Amino acid sequence: MENKVKVAVIGAGSWGTALAIVLADNGHEVRLWAHNKDRINEINEKHTNSQYLPGVELPVNIIGSDSLERVLSNLDIIVLAVPTKAIREVLQKIKTIRKEPLTIIHVSKGIEPDTLMRISEMIKEELPDGLLSDIVVLSGPSHAEEVSLRHPTTVTASSENMKAAERIQDIFMNQHFRVYTNADVVGVEIGGALKNIIALAAGISDGLGYGDNAKAALITRGLAEIARLGTKMGANPLTFSGLAGIGDLIVTCTSVHSRNWRAGNLLGKGQKLQDVLDSMGMVVEGVRTTRAARQLSIKYNVEMPIAEALYRILFEGQEPKEAVDDLMARMKTHEMEDLVDIIEDRRKEDL
Amino acid sequence: MENKVKVAVIGAGSWGTALAIVLADNGHEVRLWAHNKDRINEINEKHTNSQYLPGVELPVNIIGSDSLERVLSNLDIIVLAVPTKAIREVLQKIKTIRKEPLTIIHVSKGIEPDTLMRISEMIKEELPDGLLSDIVVLSGPSHAEEVSLRHPTTVTASSENMKAAERIQDIFMNQHFRVYTNADVVGVEIGGALKNIIALAAGISDGLGYGDNAKAALITRGLAEIARLGTKMGANPLTFSGLAGIGDLIVTCTSVHSRNWRAGNLLGKGQKLQDVLDSMGMVVEGVRTTRAARQLSIKYNVEMPIAEALYRILFEGQEPKEAVDDLMARMKTHEMEDLVDIIEDRRKEDL
Repeated sequence: MENKVKVAVIGAGSWGTALAIVLADNGHEVRLWAHNKDRINEINEKHTNSQYLPGVELPVNIIGSDSLERVLSNLDIIVLAVPTKAIREVLQKIKTIRKEPLTIIHVSKGIEPDTLMRISEMIKEELPDGLLSDIVVLSGPSHAEEVSLRHPTTVTASSENMKAAERIQDIFMNQHFRVYTNADVVGVEIGGALKNIIALAAGISDGLGYGDNAKAALITRGLAEIARLGTKMGANPLTFSGLAGIGDLIVTCTSVHSRNWRAGNLLGKGQKLQDVLDSMGMVVEGVRTTRAARQLSIKYNVEMPIAEALYRILFEGQEPKEAVDDLMARMKTHEMEDLVDIIEDRRKEDL
Repeated sequence: MENKVKVAVIGAGSWGTALAIVLADNGHEVRLWAHNKDRINEINEKHTNSQYLPGVELPVNIIGSDSLERVLSNLDIIVLAVPTKAIREVLQKIKTIRKEPLTIIHVSKGIEPDTLMRISEMIKEELPDGLLSDIVVLSGPSHAEEVSLRHPTTVTASSENMKAAERIQDIFMNQHFRVYTNADVVGVEIGGALKNIIALAAGISDGLGYGDNAKAALITRGLAEIARLGTKMGANPLTFSGLAGIGDLIVTCTSVHSRNWRAGNLLGKGQKLQDVLDSMGMVVEGVRTTRAARQLSIKYNVEMPIAEALYRILFEGQEPKEAVDDLMARMKTHEMEDLVDIIEDRRKEDL
């Protein structure tokens, strides 16, 4: 393992805090940033983050701070753990403070609406070359609550620079938290972002009382839909069969910890979107991602029936039952047709 | 839809009975065979099968019988819904009775130990050509309990003869029960059989209290392991991304209805194999399949770490915790290595 390093985790939500625990367990010096002073005081004085990880005791080598200047001084690795819609704002602040290059580990899962950028593309756009050494994406089936309890977890570290991915692998890897590398940044980012849409759909199906058979069908079709789009965007189709693809999709669609599933579940039970969002008290990335996915499906001319159905439910007021029934009825007759399309498209590009 | 037909369902367990309900809902004449006279009386008098589908009312056009002669007369389609280990015995009985060719729909999920035959291979071996017109495999994410309650369900009908698969698709298809066709019999049979091993492993992980992250990792690695073996056996790798692959795997690993998951769960909690089997009161196909999978992995020279770990737990007395911890720790560093192997192997065969 690499010598101990200093790492700043930007964002003290559940995932940022859980990753800070992993890093602290590995003996690194961990600085955890949040803009909320009360949260920082709680982290430093009580060693808890009761809003996001209730009941979990934080290691004492996690030092909270609400000063970006202080957490960014004298280190070269940061973990960016803020919601997709806060990323540009945070990067703009970092730009005003920081003069030396940073390796940025990003752990957010989303696509920016309208620009349709992946997170790593947003980071590249915001940070000048001189401030950015590498971007590494960390993704996979990893509920924060379980990571904070040291339950066995596997994730993928992906970067265009495999040396950077391997460095991050070394820093995070321990007995419970297993890190694997994958060079396919596009696939890892698309898999992570789009699974939230399928989780919303799975939650709606469960909220309608449709059961495990229907949910498994939705997840299976959802994977095909994600792979179809991702491959057109340049991803390696195999990534979607790995941890950042089907692995993350399964955990997000079947776990009670998943906020996207929970939001879908409430929609399926008949609640209105705004009421659901108000009651969650956390960001539901899948709602924004649905809008972006619909735009992507048009841009890349890819059929995405689940994203389309979600869009109609969330933004056009279609009844969840009608949309899901329609989805189940309209699947192709020969189940491999669209999977074969992916491979055929790929083959044409290779020629 | 095809005109109404007569169908015999051989085996009145939960899955046979649920499929009889689908056929009866579609207006076909359904004969349901079991050797247990009390069960037949209950089916005909009370229209229930309380041991296997408690609380479910059976349509009155399901006629139970304990006479194979009677259920096989004057029809040409049977659904074979008996445990893998009873298949040869039932086919041998059918052979003594039947003179005209049958289309056999088989819905069992397993591999015969020692011969390492798939179910359709066993059927071909037992029935002379003159008695067999076609074999169709029905598989996919389909818990019997949910099918009997008319929850939305999708399955795959697979046959070497696509006309036969399409005929069966027509007979079973209705608003809740959606049937898709797939020409890859090997992939559909291997996916169905081997998912039970992964479900046992997922149950053990849950029984150990390891959580959803660990389970998702096991399912992801399990899918890779199944695809690796199946592809060597001649399957189309895409089948494992479909309903009979990942779809069935998800439902079996994450649903409380799954008896393989439940058996694994008890093992993970520290119960001994024989006690678990005694307490289940139903066949746990995954236990026999583990033995067969280990033999297949040797025969085809394919690494199957999960099947191997299960074998050590079930038959060599290794502690579940030790075996699962070992599995989590020994995964390859670059997660796509083994997926790439599948494609490479395939490419070499194509040359």
